[in-house]
Amino acid sequence: MPGRVEGRALLYAALVHYPVLNRKGEVIASAVTNLDLHDMARTARTYGLAACYVVTPLKDQQALCESLADHWRQGIGKDLHPDRAEALMRLRIADSIEAAGEDIQREQGAKPVVWATTAKSLPGAMPHEEARRRLVEGTGPFLVLFGTGWGLAPSWMEGADAVLEPIDGIDGYNHLSVRCAAAILMDRLHLAG
Amino acid sequence: MPGRVEGRALLYAALVHYPVLNRKGEVIASAVTNLDLHDMARTARTYGLAACYVVTPLKDQQALCESLADHWRQGIGKDLHPDRAEALMRLRIADSIEAAGEDIQREQGAKPVVWATTAKSLPGAMPHEEARRRLVEGTGPFLVLFGTGWGLAPSWMEGADAVLEPIDGIDGYNHLSVRCAAAILMDRLHLAG
Repeated sequence: MPGRVEGRALLYAALVHYPVLNRKGEVIASAVTNLDLHDMARTARTYGLAACYVVTPLKDQQALCESLADHWRQGIGKDLHPDRAEALMRLRIADSIEAAGEDIQREQGAKPVVWATTAKSLPGAMPHEEARRRLVEGTGPFLVLFGTGWGLAPSWMEGADAVLEPIDGIDGYNHLSVRCAAAILMDRLHLAG
Repeated sequence: MPGRVEGRALLYAALVHYPVLNRKGEVIASAVTNLDLHDMARTARTYGLAACYVVTPLKDQQALCESLADHWRQGIGKDLHPDRAEALMRLRIADSIEAAGEDIQREQGAKPVVWATTAKSLPGAMPHEEARRRLVEGTGPFLVLFGTGWGLAPSWMEGADAVLEPIDGIDGYNHLSVRCAAAILMDRLHLAG
């Protein structure tokens, strides 16, 4: 079963479309981006995550996600690109971050430790080395939240068990795509062997 | 000037659309993907690369790239998203990998050391730690090639000065998107401080 790799923490990710901020700092539900689903699924598969939740309360967006993923998870899409099917099997749709947490609790018998991510430097943010150490030591499960749009709403920046430090470049420019930021973070948290 | 950061090697990237392989192993020119340009530009800006070349000999694809980039580099796109403009300024279009190398030579007064990347494990591939060490020690310039489609054609796997080892996940699954693989590699090669 995915996530049950010997000697590894049980790690989940969530690509959050609600509640997130728009450019004006208002809380919105953002639209799902096709390539985000592919990239998050491929990253999840590469680094052995148990699953990646696509969080949106909008039923039409949920239907779009199902349709996009199913194109590759079955039939001719699966036959042509079995590796994409394998990755997209890791995607799960959830109405909310809470619902993703409940799903993990059902699956693992324990509530996940929730880590929020942000592109901003905030006081008290957890260094990636420390997060990696907790993954190595901890039994999990752990759930890492990635906000689309202009980032996670304040409710989840405060409601998470910790906020991870941002990806640092050379000079504070902090505008990586969520796809690339998630890939880099999973690589940094990667539990070798 | 970009790339002239004190104490850093002069690093360039190229997102190669020709010559690359298709699913059948034939050499083709692949189509440009809008989000690739954004992600590669943002990664280049984040990690202080001098530039990222978009390599394609197809004039209509070159025009598409110019048009996509100019939408954000000027006018209302730039006003709304100055950070995207800043990233997309790092993109340059080149007819070929050779032309990108000549452009770098004109700019830096020396031919670049060319490193190819691949998702495959090949004998003799250079570990990322070694590549990072050469960047720290070397004066450069260095050019890292990222193949779209099913990867760089054999001519450039053999023609490059070295091939870098692939991004390793948990078990050999090697189907990250080129956007995410490039972001992870740039993070691994990141020259701190």
